[in-house]
Amino acid sequence: MFEKDCLIHPVILCGGSGTRLWPASRESFPKQFLPLAEPGRSSFQATAARLTDGASFARPAVISANDARFLVAEQLAQAGVQADILLEPCRRDSAPAVAVAALHAAARDPQALVLILPADHAVGDDAAFVRAARAARAGAMAGHIMTLGITPTGPSTAYGYIQPGAPLPGETGAHTVARFLEKPDAARAAGLIADGALWNGGYFLFRADVMLDELEAHAPAVLEAAREALATAACDLDFVRLGEEAFGRAPQISIDYAVMERTRRAGVLPVDFPWSDIGTWGALWEVSPRDADGNALRGRTAVRDTRNSLVHSSGEILTTVVGLDDVVVVATDDAVLVTSRSAGAEVKGLVETLRRRGDPEADAHRLMYRPWGSYQRIDIGGRFQVKRITVKPGGRLSLQKHHHRAEHWVVVRGTAEVTVDGAVRLVHENEAAYLPIGCVHRLANPGKIPLELIEIQVGSYTGEDDIIRIEDVYGR
Amino acid sequence: MFEKDCLIHPVILCGGSGTRLWPASRESFPKQFLPLAEPGRSSFQATAARLTDGASFARPAVISANDARFLVAEQLAQAGVQADILLEPCRRDSAPAVAVAALHAAARDPQALVLILPADHAVGDDAAFVRAARAARAGAMAGHIMTLGITPTGPSTAYGYIQPGAPLPGETGAHTVARFLEKPDAARAAGLIADGALWNGGYFLFRADVMLDELEAHAPAVLEAAREALATAACDLDFVRLGEEAFGRAPQISIDYAVMERTRRAGVLPVDFPWSDIGTWGALWEVSPRDADGNALRGRTAVRDTRNSLVHSSGEILTTVVGLDDVVVVATDDAVLVTSRSAGAEVKGLVETLRRRGDPEADAHRLMYRPWGSYQRIDIGGRFQVKRITVKPGGRLSLQKHHHRAEHWVVVRGTAEVTVDGAVRLVHENEAAYLPIGCVHRLANPGKIPLELIEIQVGSYTGEDDIIRIEDVYGR
Repeated sequence: MFEKDCLIHPVILCGGSGTRLWPASRESFPKQFLPLAEPGRSSFQATAARLTDGASFARPAVISANDARFLVAEQLAQAGVQADILLEPCRRDSAPAVAVAALHAAARDPQALVLILPADHAVGDDAAFVRAARAARAGAMAGHIMTLGITPTGPSTAYGYIQPGAPLPGETGAHTVARFLEKPDAARAAGLIADGALWNGGYFLFRADVMLDELEAHAPAVLEAAREALATAACDLDFVRLGEEAFGRAPQISIDYAVMERTRRAGVLPVDFPWSDIGTWGALWEVSPRDADGNALRGRTAVRDTRNSLVHSSGEILTTVVGLDDVVVVATDDAVLVTSRSAGAEVKGLVETLRRRGDPEADAHRLMYRPWGSYQRIDIGGRFQVKRITVKPGGRLSLQKHHHRAEHWVVVRGTAEVTVDGAVRLVHENEAAYLPIGCVHRLANPGKIPLELIEIQVGSYTGEDDIIRIEDVYGR
Repeated sequence: MFEKDCLIHPVILCGGSGTRLWPASRESFPKQFLPLAEPGRSSFQATAARLTDGASFARPAVISANDARFLVAEQLAQAGVQADILLEPCRRDSAPAVAVAALHAAARDPQALVLILPADHAVGDDAAFVRAARAARAGAMAGHIMTLGITPTGPSTAYGYIQPGAPLPGETGAHTVARFLEKPDAARAAGLIADGALWNGGYFLFRADVMLDELEAHAPAVLEAAREALATAACDLDFVRLGEEAFGRAPQISIDYAVMERTRRAGVLPVDFPWSDIGTWGALWEVSPRDADGNALRGRTAVRDTRNSLVHSSGEILTTVVGLDDVVVVATDDAVLVTSRSAGAEVKGLVETLRRRGDPEADAHRLMYRPWGSYQRIDIGGRFQVKRITVKPGGRLSLQKHHHRAEHWVVVRGTAEVTVDGAVRLVHENEAAYLPIGCVHRLANPGKIPLELIEIQVGSYTGEDDIIRIEDVYGR
């Protein structure tokens, strides 16, 4: 068999929301898109960059929530990676996404090798990861659904475990899977490790036809919904939007429950590259560079008489700790979390409380991404609101009007094309435009550099829902 | 002797900077001006309001740092209290201030009774405080420098102690002072309390002539500098500015070291009203209302599985704690402090580190007070800066120009009078004005309500030092 024949088709699953890493990670900007384990690069970007060895991998696909589509596209562009982007209209856990991945690959080659990768994990050795994926191919080509079993570095209670069974044929080091085991308590975790169990890293390598057979056998409703969602998909700019009605019918279930714990074709390849799912702030501390006092400090921070702590300031806020050990302090521009390194899962409960209280910081970031760029509220008062708006070169906001506010735009960088009631003019740096209440207007960036402007809204109501869209190039 | 003859002349000492309560308290806005122990009222305002019983107190005087003068004036006006305001051109600890207070009162009546009060203490029972001050008068009129000795509620190591001596004549409960004692360690504190020692609250009641005699005897250089500083003082608007050269010559020494520990005329009146110097965040927790879990929560906060903690969010930031006990978390718009309730004094060391690093948050708040109102930076970028400016009714900024920036003003509340190169016009809510680079301009509020506007500066340099003042009603 030629090398070309066993190219791996990677599919990155990007759908999670990661509330245990609040307030950095939120529904509107989940952790896989944040530069957490590395400065300047998200785990999604690191995952995509891990797959650029053309001798091993075909063009990747990304399966993402619809809301994150422009974030996915922008981060891929930044990372210089080209990929198919498939959009889930709603959240359905991993089994429907894996079914879509298998069908998408099978359309090109029924026996295509598909590698499922979570977008939110940290891998400490990219070359070792690629070697592992290549080493798992033999088992996958022989008809197994291969998992990568991470060699435990300690009795973690945060991961599921895999008990290897008999060796697979050949000298690959792979085994059948005797059992998948849920997250254990600490005592049981130590016992599992003594018995040779491995962490379940959430990586799956399989032949498309094998996964489709197993889905047919163990989760036919998932497969049927995924098939119909692809058949009714719409191509929209650079995205494949899965059919909303069909995908919504898919049972909400993980691939572990739907297939892996039921199939007799599971295999596991033990691997030992440094790995973390960065599931909690404590886990991030573990994979982060630390100073002589054991502190992982990121952003504008200062500590005194403090050890083994994570201090993470993602915005402008100067974040300080005095006289505490083993704490986690995370500051964003609008929210602060203080907790212990061990209290990971409790953060999720806090976010649920905030959501019930109606605190907007539970799910939304102040910086909001849009297809044309981004905006951020910088001030708000009784009858006014101020935003900084950034429009990408070529970006065009919708043609719109407001019932309750006038707007002043002051361009502070680049050039704006401003349409007001049909008249179009260019507004340059240090120039302003005025938009009376009720006028029909549009903002666009006709230039080659990002356009930045300050928008001052004045009126009796400045909410986001007072936007009447008359026309929109992004189909919103 | 008639009641009128023994009116007390209160003098509030406002000069401290309170860095142990950073980041809420900073050089530019020290703790005595913050609403810490009570919502909506600073300890300075509470102190001033405690002195409004005209049967006991004459018009108070306030001795403050020059930089805080508009803050003092504004907070007094808010509290509805009229006072003389004496301004120290530099910081010289308490002895020179007490000398100025004695001289200021003696100018009206050599035997005037003067009560020195710190501006940054919390008193839990105003009526009891007034009763105590009145009860101490007999001793003061008889020629003693009376102190209020707070009955200890525990073996605090944060306060100095006073050992009472023999009872003073009369049935007032007052004593001579056997000894003043520095802050002790915990074991010694317990022994002192067993021996009947009291906390030194920093309140002093004396006849002006008595204090002047004792200063002459024990600290003549302090007295001489204070006398000369008053003789060379300038009256400026509502302020008495002490002579800069003379006041600068005063030794930097506390009244405790300069006089109290040396004089044989010290007396002490034991008092038992609830009292705290709010010297640390832990001390603030102790005097704050707490919920069933022992948490004192102020502002936008949320806690989970957290006990006996102080969470203080003074701005917009949602501040959360999960799974920690006995911590202090303080968030302002630009800085966060996380510490333990017991780590009070270490915060001062942190602030010194920040100062050395050049972090502006060490001393300056984002909201800056000016005689005409206030301003706050809300955004900054490569070639621009955005501020929210508030001008009081009648307020006038200086006539000024900038070399490196143009400015756009958008009025979001009230009416602005805008002068540009000699031309004056009114700019109303939802209207804008443009100020080209180099134009000579002035902003004023001619109206009856505060003026709020958004200023967008665009240019190659937007620092505060690019303001060329041509004329200024506030003499800056």
